[in-house]
Amino acid sequence: MNGAEALIGALSRANVDTCFANPGTSEMQLVAAIDKAPDMRAILCLFEGVVTGAADGYGRMADKPALTLLHLGPGFGNGTANLHNARRAGSPVVNMIGDHATYHLKYDAPLTADIEGFAKPVSDWVGTSASAADLAATGLAALRASLVYPGQVASFIAPADHAWDEANGADEALPTASPPKALDDDLQAAVSALRQNGPVALYLGGRALREDALFQAGRIAAATGARLICETFAARLQRGAGRVPVERLPYFGEQAADYLKDFAAIVCVGAKPPVSFFAYPGKPSWLSPETAELVSLAERHVDALDALTRLAEEVAAPAEPHTLQPAGAPPPEEGPLNPLDLGKVLAAHMPENGIVSDEAATAGLFIFPVTAGAPRHDWLMLTGGAIGQGLPAAVGAAVACPDRKVIALQADGSGMYTVQALWTMARENLDVTTIILNNGSYAILNIELQRVGVENPGTKALSLLDLTNPAINWVSISEGMGVPACRVTTVSEFRLALEDALNHRGPRLIEAMI
Amino acid sequence: MNGAEALIGALSRANVDTCFANPGTSEMQLVAAIDKAPDMRAILCLFEGVVTGAADGYGRMADKPALTLLHLGPGFGNGTANLHNARRAGSPVVNMIGDHATYHLKYDAPLTADIEGFAKPVSDWVGTSASAADLAATGLAALRASLVYPGQVASFIAPADHAWDEANGADEALPTASPPKALDDDLQAAVSALRQNGPVALYLGGRALREDALFQAGRIAAATGARLICETFAARLQRGAGRVPVERLPYFGEQAADYLKDFAAIVCVGAKPPVSFFAYPGKPSWLSPETAELVSLAERHVDALDALTRLAEEVAAPAEPHTLQPAGAPPPEEGPLNPLDLGKVLAAHMPENGIVSDEAATAGLFIFPVTAGAPRHDWLMLTGGAIGQGLPAAVGAAVACPDRKVIALQADGSGMYTVQALWTMARENLDVTTIILNNGSYAILNIELQRVGVENPGTKALSLLDLTNPAINWVSISEGMGVPACRVTTVSEFRLALEDALNHRGPRLIEAMI
Repeated sequence: MNGAEALIGALSRANVDTCFANPGTSEMQLVAAIDKAPDMRAILCLFEGVVTGAADGYGRMADKPALTLLHLGPGFGNGTANLHNARRAGSPVVNMIGDHATYHLKYDAPLTADIEGFAKPVSDWVGTSASAADLAATGLAALRASLVYPGQVASFIAPADHAWDEANGADEALPTASPPKALDDDLQAAVSALRQNGPVALYLGGRALREDALFQAGRIAAATGARLICETFAARLQRGAGRVPVERLPYFGEQAADYLKDFAAIVCVGAKPPVSFFAYPGKPSWLSPETAELVSLAERHVDALDALTRLAEEVAAPAEPHTLQPAGAPPPEEGPLNPLDLGKVLAAHMPENGIVSDEAATAGLFIFPVTAGAPRHDWLMLTGGAIGQGLPAAVGAAVACPDRKVIALQADGSGMYTVQALWTMARENLDVTTIILNNGSYAILNIELQRVGVENPGTKALSLLDLTNPAINWVSISEGMGVPACRVTTVSEFRLALEDALNHRGPRLIEAMI
Repeated sequence: MNGAEALIGALSRANVDTCFANPGTSEMQLVAAIDKAPDMRAILCLFEGVVTGAADGYGRMADKPALTLLHLGPGFGNGTANLHNARRAGSPVVNMIGDHATYHLKYDAPLTADIEGFAKPVSDWVGTSASAADLAATGLAALRASLVYPGQVASFIAPADHAWDEANGADEALPTASPPKALDDDLQAAVSALRQNGPVALYLGGRALREDALFQAGRIAAATGARLICETFAARLQRGAGRVPVERLPYFGEQAADYLKDFAAIVCVGAKPPVSFFAYPGKPSWLSPETAELVSLAERHVDALDALTRLAEEVAAPAEPHTLQPAGAPPPEEGPLNPLDLGKVLAAHMPENGIVSDEAATAGLFIFPVTAGAPRHDWLMLTGGAIGQGLPAAVGAAVACPDRKVIALQADGSGMYTVQALWTMARENLDVTTIILNNGSYAILNIELQRVGVENPGTKALSLLDLTNPAINWVSISEGMGVPACRVTTVSEFRLALEDALNHRGPRLIEAMI
């Protein structure tokens, strides 16, 4: 047995069963070892940003890590943007990064790079194996690190000679990841805050947005009148008809500050107090009112379900929430397509237990509210702001949940960053319906240009925010990568295309001209 | 005047006139400043790997840096792979990286990241502005660093508040970058090595591969009988009919070692002694024979033209080389297309003073030799092994040299990494003929799998090296991004398509099925 086989065998026995891969020469022994591991699925992605974004989507839905397989420092570099998102999401991810044989490093061959340096800015844990015998243990240490609640990005470096040299297959037992519990003092502070005169918010993020935790939050709301508000960009929000609904904090800072201005207290669970996504001249970064009492009941790494359950008991909450999301979709207005009516049609057709990967940017702000009453579903968002996450995350979610329909709501500008994800959808016949929201623009930047104080931008500035000249034909690109596609321009065309896509298993793309 | 305007004005006056850009919210003031600088061209790329690869290609051809405009740590991360290549090429590149306003960093908003950490593994120089007043000076310091011979990757961080706060427009004079000269001792060691009994090689890289330096190498060869051998992957090789020809070191280590085994001495100019690209079990990393005398006349940062000129004088070389590359292209064999005959047709049709961006991988090994007698041209190669460089480099070369035809020889697998480059070719109407060498495979990895000792790979391993299922349709993808395209399967079809593409100005894509 060589080191690669010991490693892959150990990870496979530890219940890692999926590897998103883009290997090179230095990873060929790892490829061969994956080949020999019957329970390890290998999924080729044609760009590393797809690999890591898929691992993020997989981790959010599976609550366990996929393995990535990446080629030295630059290959890892291509994956860093989506690892930034994964880290912000608290997704479990294990990156397996090949390197030159250790004795080869001193020659500074062309691909030699400081891989640990590449890995550190986007990893919670970084390790390098010390020998062939150590390779499996290093991989298992990375796996343990990735499982620290709610999930972490762990990266380990596998030198080629450690992969091909002889090794034994010694496994280590994996301790169950058990998150710390909220402190009693923080619990009492939360109880006290909930008794404030004036409106109180429970500000929820991370694992507090799962159905079970939201149920407890709903009980607390029933007992105290607290409002439930979620992060603007949540890793995974379980919502839809019959679940406890939450309000979503607005994106733009001044709107968010206005939204929060009357709260006497804000109790955070699974989230830090909200801040502005970007800074703007003369506008505040901190969004909570100065007069509000801020309580951190449970930071992200603290057990959110336990904290909310105990808080519900402390406030003598009723057994059930009073408010559950009613079913229903608002009727669209027929005519030319726009994000609002697109969202209404989507709400009316969403399958039970679907998954939405939302990188719809400006268009998404219209679609999210009107889909609240759709059948229960999971909504995945862009947690780290590094665009190019939506299509890869859809790949990963579809792999993690093969029996659930995935709907990728994808803005055109950000979709181009990792467009190669479409090919993997086709190869793996993933059940993903991609809806490209084509407005021919980095629309958000046209808004932001004004918001940062740029007056009368000229044609050169505006050209940097414009995606026409040439217009991108997503149908053509999609079909070039093997995903059947169509273009729609009206509400009725969209409805027909959506029904068709949802009624068939496998990848489809709808280019929605909005 | 704000900091952004002071910065862009100073860089513009220092002769930086091109910015490859993919900005976000935190860079809007920089966009506005570029808008106001009449001599600064702004070129939008739809992915950061295209931005940085274009800057690499531009730097190689212009011998001065383009500016890149990138969005915080993750945006920079997407550009790291091609910056690794640029650094290995010795290309001058100045990266301008936006960041949050300094006072916003403490809130750890979603896009907050360790940008210096991202930058260090791929930069020769990293700086962060200290204030709005310091921003222009920081940019100029990066510019100076980028111009250190033969060129460096310099990255500077521009916090948003430094861009929008008031500043004065103080410029600093730029000292001319003057590279160090070869030491007299090294010169005498080279003279002594050239007098060895037995064959001697001049091993050439970096700036030693420009026409003027090769002319001097040719004089030395005429005087001493030394053979001229170039790096396997050179940043920019000036070759073609009438120029001094060089042999190219084979890629695979054992072939390279065999190639070098009889040399009594190897004199390196602009290059380090050759090493194997990857390590393989039981095969040597070091390629020079143990018995050979190794002399480093000029490392990469030492003036190569000066070193070769002085060496030619020391060996009393004749005024002219004896050997110049004769013109001519070997005749192709009609029939189904293959890389060798594709290369022969290309050689017969190459325009005078063309530029070839070669990321053709396995196919390129056939095309390079048969194009030796084509009209004089520049040949750009993948210096750092981080694939996805060819199409972006073609973008940059075409921007740097608008009067020269650029031919991108692009393997299908690596082309997918930065396929978004096609859109920029269309938007800027760049005179690039892209030839996709479509073999439906990461062909090199099928070879490497065996070379690292993997026997009898199974279907799962082979699936990770295979690009069929689904087959990629490059014509469809190219047209989707606005570049006219056609597919060819025979030598005669290729000839017609190539003639048509070369006879028209503007981007074209030929999908060559090989």
